[in-house]
Amino acid sequence: VNIDGKAYRTIWLGADGWSVEIIDQTKLPHELAFATLKTAEDAGRAILTMQVRGAPLIGAMAAYGVCLALRQDGSDEALDQAIATLAKQRPTAVNLRWALEEMRAAVRNLPRDKRLSAAYQRAAEIADADVLTNRAIGVHGAKLIEAMAARKRPGERVNVLTHCNAGWLACVDRGTALSPIYEAYDGGTALHVWVDETRPRNQGASLTAFELGAHGVPYTVIVDNAGGHLMQQGLVDMCIVGADRVAANGDVANKIGTYLKALAAKDNGVPFYVAMPHSTIDWTIAVGKDIPIEERSAEEVLTMSGRSKDGKVVQVEIAAPGSPARNDAFDVTPARLITGLITERGVCQASRDGLRSLYPERG
Amino acid sequence: VNIDGKAYRTIWLGADGWSVEIIDQTKLPHELAFATLKTAEDAGRAILTMQVRGAPLIGAMAAYGVCLALRQDGSDEALDQAIATLAKQRPTAVNLRWALEEMRAAVRNLPRDKRLSAAYQRAAEIADADVLTNRAIGVHGAKLIEAMAARKRPGERVNVLTHCNAGWLACVDRGTALSPIYEAYDGGTALHVWVDETRPRNQGASLTAFELGAHGVPYTVIVDNAGGHLMQQGLVDMCIVGADRVAANGDVANKIGTYLKALAAKDNGVPFYVAMPHSTIDWTIAVGKDIPIEERSAEEVLTMSGRSKDGKVVQVEIAAPGSPARNDAFDVTPARLITGLITERGVCQASRDGLRSLYPERG
Repeated sequence: VNIDGKAYRTIWLGADGWSVEIIDQTKLPHELAFATLKTAEDAGRAILTMQVRGAPLIGAMAAYGVCLALRQDGSDEALDQAIATLAKQRPTAVNLRWALEEMRAAVRNLPRDKRLSAAYQRAAEIADADVLTNRAIGVHGAKLIEAMAARKRPGERVNVLTHCNAGWLACVDRGTALSPIYEAYDGGTALHVWVDETRPRNQGASLTAFELGAHGVPYTVIVDNAGGHLMQQGLVDMCIVGADRVAANGDVANKIGTYLKALAAKDNGVPFYVAMPHSTIDWTIAVGKDIPIEERSAEEVLTMSGRSKDGKVVQVEIAAPGSPARNDAFDVTPARLITGLITERGVCQASRDGLRSLYPERG
Repeated sequence: VNIDGKAYRTIWLGADGWSVEIIDQTKLPHELAFATLKTAEDAGRAILTMQVRGAPLIGAMAAYGVCLALRQDGSDEALDQAIATLAKQRPTAVNLRWALEEMRAAVRNLPRDKRLSAAYQRAAEIADADVLTNRAIGVHGAKLIEAMAARKRPGERVNVLTHCNAGWLACVDRGTALSPIYEAYDGGTALHVWVDETRPRNQGASLTAFELGAHGVPYTVIVDNAGGHLMQQGLVDMCIVGADRVAANGDVANKIGTYLKALAAKDNGVPFYVAMPHSTIDWTIAVGKDIPIEERSAEEVLTMSGRSKDGKVVQVEIAAPGSPARNDAFDVTPARLITGLITERGVCQASRDGLRSLYPERG
């Protein structure tokens, strides 16, 4: 994805060929800052403090963190120690542990002098695999946007609504829900994105708005309350959201509020798509209501951070003092409300049969 | 409604019998401050700066503003001047103009020495009429909450979800959507209120949370995204919201996001009620889609005000710099999603026939 016309990933190797550079996402959206990581400690801190966030990106960061550790000490003990420390930084991130085990397998049986180059090679493969997966999602999803564009009159744009940030910034490049948007936009399709603010953490207004704007995609920020009204007014042609977990029957757990938008889409005949890689499908969970929903701190609801007039980023209390709050992070959108699932293998119905048609090996 | 156990209205006469005291709502929810108004200019400023807000309260404030003007000068010229000036403070507020014409009619044909007492009497009637209307809404609506409570097991509370602020602070006392809640709570019904934050202006998290908390009603603030999930989990027994305008067929225009909650209520079998006085019904508008929807400034979406760590109330930018935003203030909830309308005359179906049954004189 581009920033002011120059292509960026969220993580890449420095000019020295070994240090790791990242976009420091804790500074977004108010400042575009970069960080250079030279040690495993730097990598661990980047994960812990959410300089990098999003499951695929955390995985790639951890992989490069192992590389940096091996540069310091190539012993088995140091490798075990680095993997254990990196794994602790975000205890619930499945991709983090997966990437670390991949790195362990890649170097374990090699002599010390071969380990470093093998590690960098495997880390690059992990990063590149994410980009390829997301590009494939983009190609399949862009066809849906382009089909919608073909029905528009000259001068009309396709209006896509998205919720939260399932974009480039959560991945190594392109994103999941936003990948079809980038693909269609880069291919010349006239489109415009309605960006749900996505309270309580505002990933839409901050991250999605930032990355669409940086790449040049036309967008408008709206509050989470507005999507239904816009659909009633005929101002939304389709919805594309990401997923945190997909059950085997096609029910989708995603950022809180996704279910409300899916209801409005159904009520107004607006197609509602969920874009995600196969790794998001949890074949062990039969139906959505069995997906555990994380409850997060009340503080996220009761406060908001932003940039004050003097340019400083501050946190402010927004609710009546002493208010209790509840903060469920996700909700479950039933498969019956979902028009289709967009994966790296194509588009399928949100159903057991639909998923089986794309992933027969899991059938 | 009580604040720390002491009964308050939002507007009342001072101990001197003529000055007007109000709760300064610009300081809420972070500070409970009062203001004493002694001139028509004070009253105009209170309306303009939103020290008082909410259609019924603005009407009562304007009525007392005419009293204060007459104290200064009882002439016809001064009366006309005061009414013209007060009317300009909020150009679209229908109640404001209605109250001012009521005041003009009450004093116009009286000799100057009778005008002041007649004015104070009419202003008190306008304020009291609002309280009586709201109390009647409360009594009718409380029966619905009590019926729900009767189906609960011992120790269980009725969970009511509300959106925006249709409470005491928008009226002289009790409110519309919140009046049934106060009535049921004061009558000993065990209940708990889910308070939608209500972006972009946060009237839920600030005003509704403040007034429920002050009166002692148990509540929890949630983001606007959360209500659907809570309904799926069986944690919402009923919804009660206010209305900005009701069409003759029972369609309801209310704060943006109301429609999404009504969809979720329907999808989960949760009763969805709208509480409003008859003055909110617009008999000249046949169906909801003919209700004009105000579009407000993008700044309300892109910024948020709150209290910083040093205790000052500041405004912060929350979106990616340079983001465009769209800000429709209301949406229309179709009558098919509404279980019933709660008015001062009782509860009716949200339909032309339902409204006719309560207001046969308009049939």
